[in-house]
Amino acid sequence: MAEHTVTAFGQELADQESRIFEMGKLAVAQVGAAVQAIVGGDTAKAEEVVARDASLDVMDAEIEQAAARLIALRQPMAQDLRSVLAAMKISSNLERCGDLAKNIAKRTLIMVQADADSPARSGLQRMGRLAAQRLDEVMAAHRDHDVDAAVAVWRGDKEVDEQYDSLFRELLTYMMSDPRTITTSAHLLFVAKNLERIGDHATNIAEVVYYQFTGDPMPGTHRPKWDALKSEPLAD
Amino acid sequence: MAEHTVTAFGQELADQESRIFEMGKLAVAQVGAAVQAIVGGDTAKAEEVVARDASLDVMDAEIEQAAARLIALRQPMAQDLRSVLAAMKISSNLERCGDLAKNIAKRTLIMVQADADSPARSGLQRMGRLAAQRLDEVMAAHRDHDVDAAVAVWRGDKEVDEQYDSLFRELLTYMMSDPRTITTSAHLLFVAKNLERIGDHATNIAEVVYYQFTGDPMPGTHRPKWDALKSEPLAD
Repeated sequence: MAEHTVTAFGQELADQESRIFEMGKLAVAQVGAAVQAIVGGDTAKAEEVVARDASLDVMDAEIEQAAARLIALRQPMAQDLRSVLAAMKISSNLERCGDLAKNIAKRTLIMVQADADSPARSGLQRMGRLAAQRLDEVMAAHRDHDVDAAVAVWRGDKEVDEQYDSLFRELLTYMMSDPRTITTSAHLLFVAKNLERIGDHATNIAEVVYYQFTGDPMPGTHRPKWDALKSEPLAD
Repeated sequence: MAEHTVTAFGQELADQESRIFEMGKLAVAQVGAAVQAIVGGDTAKAEEVVARDASLDVMDAEIEQAAARLIALRQPMAQDLRSVLAAMKISSNLERCGDLAKNIAKRTLIMVQADADSPARSGLQRMGRLAAQRLDEVMAAHRDHDVDAAVAVWRGDKEVDEQYDSLFRELLTYMMSDPRTITTSAHLLFVAKNLERIGDHATNIAEVVYYQFTGDPMPGTHRPKWDALKSEPLAD
């Protein structure tokens, strides 16, 4: 392969990575805005989040398309192929985070319409900040090719899960003590679950980043599925 | 490319498709068993579902690995490349259906431990059967390369959504009329949501099947993301 071809391919990969980073920034912003909307009962912000979600769908489709083009035209091997496939996976995780943020925003609109408030909002705000932060951190890890940072995000998922469990119990308590809060609390149960899922997506991305830059599964995953992920042709 | 190479590639693609079909059968069985477990309070069946989920994880990893190998070694173009990428997408949707079934099974264990029952079970059974059926139908559409059948599944998603909305309201009614049912009903809200998500995954797979065999987005999707999915190199 001629040197200029290799360089062009390197540039295409770099473009791919910066597109993913831009998409990650938007996904983090959407999660942050959705949490602000639901916590503050801010319908204008909620509507912005709903409207902006289409951009993430477009970015996902473009990244997938660019990845398919890279595969077809450049036939990458080893780490290059891992990078291209990782781009597709990260992008689809981010697109899903966008869906979850949009869902939170839609529930804001329902709640404001019902003039509903909940004492669980501060817990949601804390959990929402944490989930957005995890997503932000793992996208920085991807940009910086920082495997240790990806491992740190992966390990931090327990904290998101704990906050979810605590919110779940808190919301059930409100439901039991005042049946008039049941509808609102049911919506907030789903908001909490959405935030927990966003944390899971950050963890998924951390596993992809680790695999992309090392060729090995994340240590400590001990997942049966990793046993099937051995060498050729994705390993170096 | 020598004839025998083309044939070998064709065989590899066919193997990939039959692996996906096997995975789909297991995913449908897991959804069906999880619904039976939660409806019948059957802990033995729930434990089977939880234990069997690892197989879907392994199958997903194997299909992904095989797809990467096909890409690296065979450098497929046009419909062949679409088929390989579709395999990865369908497999990851099925793996996620397995996670959702496992989650339903785990909630069975919690509910049986709490000796909890709910009048919503018949609604859940109906919805569960429908979600499993949609998944089964879309996997048959993939096996048979039947684009019309994929379109029918895609159109049928509304029915799953309607059943979800009705169950959501039903569960809230139980919570309001008897606060002792709140914990159980909260778990069943998530079960209903999981079944609705399984319906969404069937819909996602229908879109992938349509795109794989036609090179075009599913008609009527009108999704902005499809605008980015135009020709080269995935189109024929």
